[in-house]
Amino acid sequence: MFSLTVRDHMMIAHSFNSETFGPAQKLHGATYVVDVTFKRPELDQDDLVVDIGLASDTLKTVLAEFTLTNLDEAVEFRGRNTTTEFMAKVVFDRLSHAIREGQLGEGGRHLTAMTVTLHESHIAWASYEGAL
Amino acid sequence: MFSLTVRDHMMIAHSFNSETFGPAQKLHGATYVVDVTFKRPELDQDDLVVDIGLASDTLKTVLAEFTLTNLDEAVEFRGRNTTTEFMAKVVFDRLSHAIREGQLGEGGRHLTAMTVTLHESHIAWASYEGAL
Amino acid sequence: MFSLTVRDHMMIAHSFNSETFGPAQKLHGATYVVDVTFKRPELDQDDLVVDIGLASDTLKTVLAEFTLTNLDEAVEFRGRNTTTEFMAKVVFDRLSHAIREGQLGEGGRHLTAMTVTLHESHIAWASYEGAL
Amino acid sequence: MFSLTVRDHMMIAHSFNSETFGPAQKLHGATYVVDVTFKRPELDQDDLVVDIGLASDTLKTVLAEFTLTNLDEAVEFRGRNTTTEFMAKVVFDRLSHAIREGQLGEGGRHLTAMTVTLHESHIAWASYEGAL
Amino acid sequence: MFSLTVRDHMMIAHSFNSETFGPAQKLHGATYVVDVTFKRPELDQDDLVVDIGLASDTLKTVLAEFTLTNLDEAVEFRGRNTTTEFMAKVVFDRLSHAIREGQLGEGGRHLTAMTVTLHESHIAWASYEGAL
Amino acid sequence: MFSLTVRDHMMIAHSFNSETFGPAQKLHGATYVVDVTFKRPELDQDDLVVDIGLASDTLKTVLAEFTLTNLDEAVEFRGRNTTTEFMAKVVFDRLSHAIREGQLGEGGRHLTAMTVTLHESHIAWASYEGAL
Repeated sequence: MFSLTVRDHMMIAHSFNSETFGPAQKLHGATYVVDVTFKRPELDQDDLVVDIGLASDTLKTVLAEFTLTNLDEAVEFRGRNTTTEFMAKVVFDRLSHAIREGQLGEGGRHLTAMTVTLHESHIAWASYEGAL
Repeated sequence: MFSLTVRDHMMIAHSFNSETFGPAQKLHGATYVVDVTFKRPELDQDDLVVDIGLASDTLKTVLAEFTLTNLDEAVEFRGRNTTTEFMAKVVFDRLSHAIREGQLGEGGRHLTAMTVTLHESHIAWASYEGAL
Repeated sequence: MFSLTVRDHMMIAHSFNSETFGPAQKLHGATYVVDVTFKRPELDQDDLVVDIGLASDTLKTVLAEFTLTNLDEAVEFRGRNTTTEFMAKVVFDRLSHAIREGQLGEGGRHLTAMTVTLHESHIAWASYEGAL
Repeated sequence: MFSLTVRDHMMIAHSFNSETFGPAQKLHGATYVVDVTFKRPELDQDDLVVDIGLASDTLKTVLAEFTLTNLDEAVEFRGRNTTTEFMAKVVFDRLSHAIREGQLGEGGRHLTAMTVTLHESHIAWASYEGAL
Repeated sequence: MFSLTVRDHMMIAHSFNSETFGPAQKLHGATYVVDVTFKRPELDQDDLVVDIGLASDTLKTVLAEFTLTNLDEAVEFRGRNTTTEFMAKVVFDRLSHAIREGQLGEGGRHLTAMTVTLHESHIAWASYEGAL
Repeated sequence: MFSLTVRDHMMIAHSFNSETFGPAQKLHGATYVVDVTFKRPELDQDDLVVDIGLASDTLKTVLAEFTLTNLDEAVEFRGRNTTTEFMAKVVFDRLSHAIREGQLGEGGRHLTAMTVTLHESHIAWASYEGAL
């Protein structure tokens, strides 16, 4: 299995709803350094997993929806906690949609799996991994 | 599949028994930077893989048994070589036990797999990965 | 010249006031990975720059004032922009005060300089460096 | 499953053939930081995945064939694009061959899988993973 | 003293002229991960060292001259060795010129010093540091 | 001012003598990832700070004296605590001596300053910096 990973980041504010979160129930924020790994069993005719330029641009477009915002104001996340693991899945879903829409080009259609990892600090990170 | 990873470290002395180890048969030591990845297919009702505070505290407790000690003196490891890969399994087993004991809370009971990685330097690391 | 550096982090929300900041004028957030370097020309009688336990604990106490908060609500920062470089100086000043108060022990009184670096992402960080 | 990873690097020149690559069609170069992960389900009698000295030496020997060369001149790669993902597979194949030849010792014969990751920058890397 | 650092990278081919370089006399290449640190004693009225957007864009423009090229073909470097330390000075000089031209805005005119670091691998990097 | 940095590591056992060290008074160990920065104001005729091969080899030779040993057994360190900062100075002194002996070649004689940094974990490191 081949894979290609690209890295970008987003900076967001948010708060959590549940006593489990203790002081993190208050409004605070995070930088998420985001790694996306694209997988497929065979390379394309250019010896690529996917066009790295398209992959980086698509990731930047997905993250632009969230970076420099307060996630508490996103209607879509109402009633959910925008934890690191939850946001990994959100980025995964947005990218899956973009791939199906053809934003990664023809090569994107041959991807079979993807992993999205969000690093919230030097000592904690979370991922969502799934088939495409 | 979702995952959450937390990082901590331990500093230990040890020596190895077998000609395979060459000069590492003498007493020396290592800093192990320890990453533990907890996995489960669905998030809990708080949108978490596991409570990160409990996860970090439990890891610290497990590592406290070893850090600032000479592993050669641990009766439990008599006759074994406390290599990086061996210690990854030891930390895995201690954490598995803690999870079964409920130290990661109710969320811990839904974890399905775990990976423990010990970094021994900037150019070498080892892991043990297993189901829970 | 000798130095010792310890690392910790804080997660905050904030917004900026000035057209210079463009979209960062909206409420957003950041994880700051914080490195503090303590300097002195000679080691103490224990061959230390400073007690690393006291240094780490004091840094954690200083960061606890800010982490998991919205810096926009801090009266002290009213009228200022809590940029990465500005917050580096804030942490520097808090630590300088703590050192003068003796929180780093006798060894802390022999420190001659300090650098505080806040990493806001994998591609940007800022520092404040000064004499003690 | 146990794993052991070792890191080394190679510095190469190359160019790509296809409009997909845009300006990268011109001769340029890269430093590849190379991580190789060796896997097996059980440790050997010395509590090792594989002899780390042999693993590091064998990786260095494999990379020596490429480092400080222009990959465009390698007859073997004629008609292919020596992308990061393609080179990950090349290193994988060379190491698989070396393992079959016994260069990782008896322990090498018990390895069941391997992953080769080439980091081309702080924001992009690629892997090839396969059974042995 | 305050500082702000931004990171980017460039991928180049080159060769060296002198027996000192051994096998690196042949055409090869490198990824340079480039860190630029901008320094000034006081923050501006926005609490900034320099506008990070302008700083990042200017660095990208400077690196664009070199990335995806063969440095051996640059007339300007004829008779020189484009070592990591040499290229650090080249980037420093290009950025100094851009700052004097006003490309970092008014804030850029208050910078007093700059450091350019080029990382050639995980085990080697070089810098040039000077007053502005 | 130009600089070149090379990285290597050593793995040692040791214990500390003083109540300041608490549990670290017991025998334990550390991996020190060692960065050495060589400085000079002008490059040599090959556009180098110093021959990187000689620099790396000399560092490896210096570290070989300590790696895979118990520092408590070194007569030279009797009565001292082999803290990270203390060992940074020891490596500095060994390298200074090697430079004076000509082990870094003619280029080594033009170095004007050096910094030695020992990383003991992902959250702590220490340095010694001095003129040559």
